Amino acid sequence: MKTPIPDYLEEVLAELRDVDDGATADYIPELASADPDRSALAITSADGSTYSAGDAEVAFTIQSISKPFAYAAAIMDRGLDGVLEVVGVEPSGEAFDELSLEGETHRPKNPMINAGAITAHALLVGPTTTAADRVERIRSLCSRLAGRELAVDERVAASELETADRNLAIAHMLRTYGIVDDPAHELVEGYVRQCALLVTVEDLSMMAATLAAGGVQPRTGEQLMPPEVARQVMAVMAAAGMYDAAGDWLTRVGIPAKSGVAGGMVGVLPDRAGISAFSPRLDARGNSVRGRMAFERLSADMGMHLFAADRGLPDRVELDDDGTAATLVLRGTVEFTAAAQLLDLMATLRRDTVLLDVSRVHTVSDVGRRMTLEGLRRLRLDGVRVQLHDPGEVLPDPDLGDGGRPERR
Amino acid sequence: MKTPIPDYLEEVLAELRDVDDGATADYIPELASADPDRSALAITSADGSTYSAGDAEVAFTIQSISKPFAYAAAIMDRGLDGVLEVVGVEPSGEAFDELSLEGETHRPKNPMINAGAITAHALLVGPTTTAADRVERIRSLCSRLAGRELAVDERVAASELETADRNLAIAHMLRTYGIVDDPAHELVEGYVRQCALLVTVEDLSMMAATLAAGGVQPRTGEQLMPPEVARQVMAVMAAAGMYDAAGDWLTRVGIPAKSGVAGGMVGVLPDRAGISAFSPRLDARGNSVRGRMAFERLSADMGMHLFAADRGLPDRVELDDDGTAATLVLRGTVEFTAAAQLLDLMATLRRDTVLLDVSRVHTVSDVGRRMTLEGLRRLRLDGVRVQLHDPGEVLPDPDLGDGGRPERR
Amino acid sequence: MKTPIPDYLEEVLAELRDVDDGATADYIPELASADPDRSALAITSADGSTYSAGDAEVAFTIQSISKPFAYAAAIMDRGLDGVLEVVGVEPSGEAFDELSLEGETHRPKNPMINAGAITAHALLVGPTTTAADRVERIRSLCSRLAGRELAVDERVAASELETADRNLAIAHMLRTYGIVDDPAHELVEGYVRQCALLVTVEDLSMMAATLAAGGVQPRTGEQLMPPEVARQVMAVMAAAGMYDAAGDWLTRVGIPAKSGVAGGMVGVLPDRAGISAFSPRLDARGNSVRGRMAFERLSADMGMHLFAADRGLPDRVELDDDGTAATLVLRGTVEFTAAAQLLDLMATLRRDTVLLDVSRVHTVSDVGRRMTLEGLRRLRLDGVRVQLHDPGEVLPDPDLGDGGRPERR
Amino acid sequence: MKTPIPDYLEEVLAELRDVDDGATADYIPELASADPDRSALAITSADGSTYSAGDAEVAFTIQSISKPFAYAAAIMDRGLDGVLEVVGVEPSGEAFDELSLEGETHRPKNPMINAGAITAHALLVGPTTTAADRVERIRSLCSRLAGRELAVDERVAASELETADRNLAIAHMLRTYGIVDDPAHELVEGYVRQCALLVTVEDLSMMAATLAAGGVQPRTGEQLMPPEVARQVMAVMAAAGMYDAAGDWLTRVGIPAKSGVAGGMVGVLPDRAGISAFSPRLDARGNSVRGRMAFERLSADMGMHLFAADRGLPDRVELDDDGTAATLVLRGTVEFTAAAQLLDLMATLRRDTVLLDVSRVHTVSDVGRRMTLEGLRRLRLDGVRVQLHDPGEVLPDPDLGDGGRPERR
Repeated sequence: MKTPIPDYLEEVLAELRDVDDGATADYIPELASADPDRSALAITSADGSTYSAGDAEVAFTIQSISKPFAYAAAIMDRGLDGVLEVVGVEPSGEAFDELSLEGETHRPKNPMINAGAITAHALLVGPTTTAADRVERIRSLCSRLAGRELAVDERVAASELETADRNLAIAHMLRTYGIVDDPAHELVEGYVRQCALLVTVEDLSMMAATLAAGGVQPRTGEQLMPPEVARQVMAVMAAAGMYDAAGDWLTRVGIPAKSGVAGGMVGVLPDRAGISAFSPRLDARGNSVRGRMAFERLSADMGMHLFAADRGLPDRVELDDDGTAATLVLRGTVEFTAAAQLLDLMATLRRDTVLLDVSRVHTVSDVGRRMTLEGLRRLRLDGVRVQLHDPGEVLPDPDLGDGGRPERR
Repeated sequence: MKTPIPDYLEEVLAELRDVDDGATADYIPELASADPDRSALAITSADGSTYSAGDAEVAFTIQSISKPFAYAAAIMDRGLDGVLEVVGVEPSGEAFDELSLEGETHRPKNPMINAGAITAHALLVGPTTTAADRVERIRSLCSRLAGRELAVDERVAASELETADRNLAIAHMLRTYGIVDDPAHELVEGYVRQCALLVTVEDLSMMAATLAAGGVQPRTGEQLMPPEVARQVMAVMAAAGMYDAAGDWLTRVGIPAKSGVAGGMVGVLPDRAGISAFSPRLDARGNSVRGRMAFERLSADMGMHLFAADRGLPDRVELDDDGTAATLVLRGTVEFTAAAQLLDLMATLRRDTVLLDVSRVHTVSDVGRRMTLEGLRRLRLDGVRVQLHDPGEVLPDPDLGDGGRPERR
Repeated sequence: MKTPIPDYLEEVLAELRDVDDGATADYIPELASADPDRSALAITSADGSTYSAGDAEVAFTIQSISKPFAYAAAIMDRGLDGVLEVVGVEPSGEAFDELSLEGETHRPKNPMINAGAITAHALLVGPTTTAADRVERIRSLCSRLAGRELAVDERVAASELETADRNLAIAHMLRTYGIVDDPAHELVEGYVRQCALLVTVEDLSMMAATLAAGGVQPRTGEQLMPPEVARQVMAVMAAAGMYDAAGDWLTRVGIPAKSGVAGGMVGVLPDRAGISAFSPRLDARGNSVRGRMAFERLSADMGMHLFAADRGLPDRVELDDDGTAATLVLRGTVEFTAAAQLLDLMATLRRDTVLLDVSRVHTVSDVGRRMTLEGLRRLRLDGVRVQLHDPGEVLPDPDLGDGGRPERR
Repeated sequence: MKTPIPDYLEEVLAELRDVDDGATADYIPELASADPDRSALAITSADGSTYSAGDAEVAFTIQSISKPFAYAAAIMDRGLDGVLEVVGVEPSGEAFDELSLEGETHRPKNPMINAGAITAHALLVGPTTTAADRVERIRSLCSRLAGRELAVDERVAASELETADRNLAIAHMLRTYGIVDDPAHELVEGYVRQCALLVTVEDLSMMAATLAAGGVQPRTGEQLMPPEVARQVMAVMAAAGMYDAAGDWLTRVGIPAKSGVAGGMVGVLPDRAGISAFSPRLDARGNSVRGRMAFERLSADMGMHLFAADRGLPDRVELDDDGTAATLVLRGTVEFTAAAQLLDLMATLRRDTVLLDVSRVHTVSDVGRRMTLEGLRRLRLDGVRVQLHDPGEVLPDPDLGDGGRPERR
């Protein structure tokens, strides 16, 4: 069965192709010279199916998208309490102060801002680690999350180090308050190498899907972090991930996310999917313009929203006694997640007759409709008798691709 | 099949019985004189099963818990854009200013603070509404959400009006900026009557479950608000619901929530459940002490966390060709949601043999374990041959209640 | 001797006559309909000489300029400690919060903002005062400060009361925190009547000169407030009087000041002078546009600056033994204050010969030069032999008005 | 005539001798090992008389007290506009942010905080200066202000450089925003050497007296900075000099001031005096505990307050025609300044009879009383007939030291 998702992702990219707002990051030549027209999208579901579109093979530096993963590593290496002692979990709010350190503790407010990310980097491995070991720790974790060996782009790292005044300022200030102990220059060098890991959109979506699946890499099945660590990372991304205007992003888009100045962007929906985008043109806040718009589209059109009531499963599966008929009762909203799992379930049924009951469904999104019909079409190709109970006409004109339609019930 | 959930809720309440920190709200006699030892808990799942424990029949005034529901009504009555024009969606942050109005627009920062809630109240019905119609609008909506007719406690409302200086201050300031037009006293009177709606924990859990189910009242099946309205309300509760320390609550507890000064508290997990608690002793921020602790326990022990990878469904259901055997493959974490749905699914299978495959499960919480074993026990009572594939021993000592155990596979 | 000061003030007004930026306050008809082209200036020196120019006879409502004087009255009525308990003395900073109450105490930050001014008004007379007595208290004090009976413009007061939402908001909030006890409406009514006192620029300059003279009304010699009260009021005006940008005003203009929305403006230089302006066109912050510019001119041209090293006295007066000659040695900067006092001193000398030694003077402002030469001219008219020791040529071309020049020494 | 001022300063020190709150700065050994019991006070009047008490010969490092003088040098070297472009003049307020850079411009808020002081240091001399030239520029200016050659304590400078993380953080951040261009380490090295200039309290009081005298070194008569530069520096000290609580210091103490972590403290009253203190024990904000208390005493007892109506001169001097009698009419408050100038004036009168008229004086402080009586006593020693007109008894029991009293008039 051919899934309609890649086509859908291509459509989203095509619609964004004319958007040329923003500019590549200009502070180092390696980023500035990136081809601004490249763009790519990828989704990996929590059970490990990856879909991508566009320049999916293009590698770029991970930059700030490394932050949630280094935070996860720091928690694994030092324990959650040890990390909370020196890095908070609160949004940094309207950016009126330079460093976003908390008043009394001087903790960085969260690990998604540079101060918190440098602190998390400093916590990697253990108290007496070398700078090289820290970089290897995060490189190695990200590699296992992505499912392939990742490398540091040393040229980008070297360039960034030359203009690292802001990060040096932060590292010196963190030393002032005893938040970190290592020499400022050494920390910043390690941190910019962390940020220079080369990834593709497929890597990023797989890394995020591992968070979504509670720490289990969905392709290898390996538990790369305890579920409570994945939970902590996703919650912090929701509270402080992408925008000063945390509430606006959480309500309107609803995909906890993090972006990087090389144009990458990653998002996560727990239990559902890891999502990623790439396009080097940045807006004034340093977020990929097309990346941000792609996320908005995925949320609006595919119901990919943390608070979407997209149940992600048939409400009830009724199998008759003699093994010849199955009834699948859906409920609520059918968008990407529910439809994807419906397709999975349909593949396991071995019945002569399948009745899809959508009488309790109130909304079917465009992508949900396409996927549901594709599932029914394929069942019929397999010789199954396909029936539909749809008194509310939530699936009007259910053309199965060949002009045929399911039997009405 | 007897569900173990009420027992579990009773246990939580029992453990909190000795907690007597905090005090009843003292600013009006009606609240101050509440019996401080009353406590209750309730959960309503997104498909409408309600479980409760403790003083579940005691009614108390809804107070600030009315805010998310009045916000929903305002969006339905005026459109999301119309509401966003005058009320924001951002956390109000560390409460250093009195009114939490946004800098340039003077919008209240969000509808969960009094300024935003009074504004949302003012938007009810339409521009030329009477004060009485506004109160009736919210009373009527809450009644349908709860599934029974709710009434205003006019004595509490009258008392609160006498000490309403803070709300009057807010209403006058909102008039100053043209955020509201109605006379300040009239608005505040309507708002305190909204806050004086009498509810029980079961009412609250049902109201929240309706949000969780995307706006569909799970018992009546009535769509009481569009799914995107429910989504907006839940997202705003997550961003700004309960604490100044939004990130701490979102990471540690992970249940978008709202509390009221009469001791009530409500939480919501999209697609999963509405949760509520009641206990009149309040902490310094006006949250129910035991209520807050109960939510912490439900999150820690039952995996009720927005970012818990509690998939809420069997990963794969394999039915053999001859209709005699079924294999249920679980994956990830099994906590309350997954287990509850597993029990539902088990009830629809009509097979001689059921194999539960937990080889890809990494964690089973206490409540998840109890519920899973209860499901298997009941299958055996129905004469089904029960098998378990558990190479990782995630369900050690699977006593089915009668000393018997499933067959190992 | 004709003083050149009124001519100087006329010049300043003339230069501002074409400035028509800004607009009259539009929130009540009585202020909106003021003739926008009226303008006036007045200076009263600390020893009671008043100079004015322009529409000096036009009366306007005092508005926020009543704040420093009500603050003085509150301190006299309740003691400084009693007032500091409920009103602070800190600048309110960049106006990011609505009410400028301090974090823990909820005190209004200072008495120059409305919250602090309403609190100061509430403190007038004593704990059990009537609203009418409070208004009479401030009316009576301002009358004695001005040296004539002032009246309340009841029409303006009534109009302002109709649109007093902001002040009502403040009064209700102050009640919430126990900062004030009286009914909100009663306080605001008294406060708007205080603000509706009718004054002229000469009144205001005399009121401010009383502060400058340490509480002694310079014309009547009456001690209207203890010197430490005058000191407190002037210091608070410096810290929090006129602008959010307190440092900019203090460095660039250097005249502690307060403005009112009817177009009035008052400033004070301790020991030197009270200064006032009137012009109804306001800038975006509610300050008189021409008033502000006039203050800038007086500071730049006349050296009227709190930190100007304008010593205000001859450094040394040498009188020879036989009573025939006097030497006046000046030092530093000679601007308005020094020159005015030099003229006073010259009038008391009865010598055949007067030598003015400016060898240690480094700067003579334009107005300082005009006044000094006027003093010498007048001495010569009285038959005195006038000599000048000016090796640094700080008084080049010392024409005494008739083409004559002092003897060089 | 022996002035009572040194005795007075000794008394102040004696009363503070038992105060042992606070501790020496502990972050570098050279400061930590200072003798904590040392203390000293000095006053230099605007006409160059220096009075001191205590350990006046002990040298200590100037530390942050160098800031106002480096700011003056920067303005002279780059022009006021050039400096305002990169350093503001506003108080930094309640220290909730780490660097106190302004929102849009990223200018440090004022030159009294480290960020502004490092920026001012960077502006010294000109755009292409060496680090050594900058240090020499400020050393040379401070030397001329103090009236003797000052030296850098290179050991203290070297020690401070080792723990300069905070200043390095600031310098890197300033580079980020283009506020400074020089290498961070070079700037900080120069800045800590500026802070390591060795001074005594007499040096500091003379440096401040030069500001008070409008830029003229009162002993050498040399104009070391234009009067408008001195004015700017004093105004910024008033707005942002010593405390977050700028309004509290300005109202209660009223002496624009700056302190250093080695225990020094300097204050200035325009036209009147430079004031300094030294005592190494610091409070939590890094201000000398005894220094702060000494300033509070000088303000309370000697009327040394920016807003004290201490006119600083006889109001009228009447000389009779025949050269035998003089009448000195005083007015207002008589404290340190007025009394000091009265003594100066008395020394120039050559009259058989002197009548002191205090009928228009309302307050005479303790120090004012002592000094006035000392002046009269000395006149009588010179054979002058001394008369007093004091109907209000503001100088009760005017014992001239020998039991004698002036004639009553």
